[in-house]
Amino acid sequence: MSLSIKISDLQKLWPESTCSGVTSVVELTGIANLNDAKAGDLSFLGNPKYRSQVSATKASVVLLPDEYVGVPSQDQLFIRLDNPSRALAEVCKVLEEKLHPSDPPGIHPAAYIEPSANVSESASVGAFTYIGKDAIVGESCKIGTHCHVGAQAVVGSNSVLHPGVKLLNRCYIGTGVIINAGVVIGSEGFGFDQNEGIHQKVPHLGRVVVEDNVEIGANTCIDRARFEETRIGEGTKIDNLVQIGHNVQLGKRCLLVAQVGVSGSVVMEDDVIAGGQAGFAGHLKVGRGAKIAGQAGITKSVEPGAFLKGNPALPFHLAQRISVLQRKLPELFNRFAQEKSKE
Amino acid sequence: MSLSIKISDLQKLWPESTCSGVTSVVELTGIANLNDAKAGDLSFLGNPKYRSQVSATKASVVLLPDEYVGVPSQDQLFIRLDNPSRALAEVCKVLEEKLHPSDPPGIHPAAYIEPSANVSESASVGAFTYIGKDAIVGESCKIGTHCHVGAQAVVGSNSVLHPGVKLLNRCYIGTGVIINAGVVIGSEGFGFDQNEGIHQKVPHLGRVVVEDNVEIGANTCIDRARFEETRIGEGTKIDNLVQIGHNVQLGKRCLLVAQVGVSGSVVMEDDVIAGGQAGFAGHLKVGRGAKIAGQAGITKSVEPGAFLKGNPALPFHLAQRISVLQRKLPELFNRFAQEKSKE
Amino acid sequence: MSLSIKISDLQKLWPESTCSGVTSVVELTGIANLNDAKAGDLSFLGNPKYRSQVSATKASVVLLPDEYVGVPSQDQLFIRLDNPSRALAEVCKVLEEKLHPSDPPGIHPAAYIEPSANVSESASVGAFTYIGKDAIVGESCKIGTHCHVGAQAVVGSNSVLHPGVKLLNRCYIGTGVIINAGVVIGSEGFGFDQNEGIHQKVPHLGRVVVEDNVEIGANTCIDRARFEETRIGEGTKIDNLVQIGHNVQLGKRCLLVAQVGVSGSVVMEDDVIAGGQAGFAGHLKVGRGAKIAGQAGITKSVEPGAFLKGNPALPFHLAQRISVLQRKLPELFNRFAQEKSKE
Repeated sequence: MSLSIKISDLQKLWPESTCSGVTSVVELTGIANLNDAKAGDLSFLGNPKYRSQVSATKASVVLLPDEYVGVPSQDQLFIRLDNPSRALAEVCKVLEEKLHPSDPPGIHPAAYIEPSANVSESASVGAFTYIGKDAIVGESCKIGTHCHVGAQAVVGSNSVLHPGVKLLNRCYIGTGVIINAGVVIGSEGFGFDQNEGIHQKVPHLGRVVVEDNVEIGANTCIDRARFEETRIGEGTKIDNLVQIGHNVQLGKRCLLVAQVGVSGSVVMEDDVIAGGQAGFAGHLKVGRGAKIAGQAGITKSVEPGAFLKGNPALPFHLAQRISVLQRKLPELFNRFAQEKSKE
Repeated sequence: MSLSIKISDLQKLWPESTCSGVTSVVELTGIANLNDAKAGDLSFLGNPKYRSQVSATKASVVLLPDEYVGVPSQDQLFIRLDNPSRALAEVCKVLEEKLHPSDPPGIHPAAYIEPSANVSESASVGAFTYIGKDAIVGESCKIGTHCHVGAQAVVGSNSVLHPGVKLLNRCYIGTGVIINAGVVIGSEGFGFDQNEGIHQKVPHLGRVVVEDNVEIGANTCIDRARFEETRIGEGTKIDNLVQIGHNVQLGKRCLLVAQVGVSGSVVMEDDVIAGGQAGFAGHLKVGRGAKIAGQAGITKSVEPGAFLKGNPALPFHLAQRISVLQRKLPELFNRFAQEKSKE
Repeated sequence: MSLSIKISDLQKLWPESTCSGVTSVVELTGIANLNDAKAGDLSFLGNPKYRSQVSATKASVVLLPDEYVGVPSQDQLFIRLDNPSRALAEVCKVLEEKLHPSDPPGIHPAAYIEPSANVSESASVGAFTYIGKDAIVGESCKIGTHCHVGAQAVVGSNSVLHPGVKLLNRCYIGTGVIINAGVVIGSEGFGFDQNEGIHQKVPHLGRVVVEDNVEIGANTCIDRARFEETRIGEGTKIDNLVQIGHNVQLGKRCLLVAQVGVSGSVVMEDDVIAGGQAGFAGHLKVGRGAKIAGQAGITKSVEPGAFLKGNPALPFHLAQRISVLQRKLPELFNRFAQEKSKE
């Protein structure tokens, strides 16, 4: 990683921190786990279970919790502070701005903005991006290249659309939202009436509402509602290649890992976690804080706090137990055959 | 939903309808199910099983079948007609044109059309769209922003390409087709020859043919054939994030729900339904009208009319039965252990 | 297929070949398997197991291995050579260049190249493509329409980016790489710290490295690493709609079929094969040459050479055996119930 940060700049980030030890390194050139770190690297003790790795780390600087007991090796600096994980995140934020500098405010000359659109002067709009009629782009938004912001769509302040995002007509994005490349928001729902053997399209008149601080992974798709709104609750994080059907209502702070599929009209309460490739059949309800294992197939509503696995999904420990017993089926059938032959 | 439609305009849509009751509402501002509707809303009795909800609905206007017996509440209008579901679809169509107005015919100044391309004067082409050499775009087509229509590709009349569709060289789209945002049609198939441990690319010379009235969901991918054609049959509907491999032949009126994967050279006959995340191994045949449950794994050809579930897939009722028995495995093994200890 | 190739041009491709028989056909107009071929077609015996089909084929020209014994039918030409499969690939390569002609070197007038970017004069860059600051595009690269090559990104020589590829900042593509339409490389990883119930974003400072001769299918997503590199090993082939999480390390010559999901920090050694829709949990290791069946769920590290199936994944033959026995569960439970009633 071609990063660099001066140790003196680091120390300025945390005036309340305590230092011990001395390093000859002036500029750090990498970040790594305690075990992998080498001279010149910054490391950190985020999770107490790695405590024993601190004494052997080769890192030049180590971020440690205040209560850590121990002394630095030679040519090593310890920085003790309240929360090393958060401190690391702060360093990363500084580095990120250096490695992935934001575009300055302004509209790229190769973008096209409809005259009736309202784009904040503090927003940036990338090359080949189209902003539709009566659309609104809020303060300090970063709209990448090749984006489409449809007619009457709204992007709240401080939100980021990475390259190639398609935000279709009338959809609404809150503040502080991050939408990764290639995402489609507001596509037509998959709904048809049967009419003499023909699948007759059901028009979709609704929209998608994405609340504040949501993040959405690359190439994920969110369909608009039939009449009202498909809604993604505040602080929910969605990974890449996820499918969200029409009329779905996701609660706050849910986590949907890559390739999850959520069928139309599913309602998830707050704090639901769904592992990768899990699938949810239509029109069911998932209770608050439920955890769904990767690849699980959910065909019935889920109680709050449940932890389910498998297809059909079962309580996690029962599913584990059955998996173990399935492996013993050959033995069971063998014994059964023996007894049969004894009779 | 910020919609509005005058009741007098509604009535003009169905001159053959019969009205009863009176409402003071002049302009409807929403559409909702019978239970959810409030004053100002339009509702409808599409499915007879909701008949009992009509008497309590708060909707200002209710679409009912001719044979419905009952009287409107106060400040409520009943409109009786032949087919309330179809009538609702007609209302939606009118509203859709208001909420998502089509672009007028013409080529956006920021589009790029190769001189040898043939674009109908009644078609619209969005900003930053590229139309390749010798491509044909038919009458009344709507080509959105950021689309790529490759060399010699054909888009039949009245078809719609939403933003960011990539229709690659020589592919063919029939009439009345709807392709949602981010779809890729005509990518290279996944085919390699092993040559001394190296995967040697197999060139793909074929194309993709999408027949009339097909709809394709956002970010779905359809690979072109090795020599001839990958084909999507008339009236088939494909949801978001679906994978269609090289040389696949889909019949007419199939329904493929989101995230289905169809491997190379699969042949599906007409009217096949595949639930979300179902997967089909290569080179197999799926008979007419077969139904495949979500997440099923199909590794052998499927008889016409079969209804399969699970991986490996089994007839639906057998799969259900086995699921029930699996949950009893702990009990079975316990008894088995007891008997063993008795011996 | 609207292809055409003169038989005399074919013969020039393989001066060392031996011909027997005569055909009146001058120009071939199709390629097909032995069974499907008709007059005017080229066919070939690639796999010896189809040997018996040669005598009945209607193809006008048949490519055969040197050792093939037999005589051509009337109006048919046999061409015997060392390796008919490779010869066919050579014909296809010639035809591909005719059917999908490469753009000539040069930058499309509707592309936008940042002044500090370095684009080889032998490269072609399509309409509406954006090349970012300090990016490098190597010799003879083909960059399609609507691509984004981010700041400091590198595309090695002879690589192809099909339309709409988003190659984000600082990512690196080797030589001879093919990236299909809609692929996203370098998106943010899905990583969050829990902080008082809120999912706090973990910045991703790393990048993606794609080694030489890799191919990547349409709409696939590869996230960048947290600190260092997500890496795709030389000669690995990835199908459409595949998810590769942050920090993943794929070995050389792996094959990942469509819709596979690989969670963060997975390490795959060389020559791993993963069937469609298979899923890999985070932080595990997959040994060299392992084969994973379609839809399998891998939740533990995998030994080199293992062949696994199912979720939870089991050795292939055990999984097959258990599948068979599961189908007998109804019978087993019936007998069990009978014995219980006898007691």
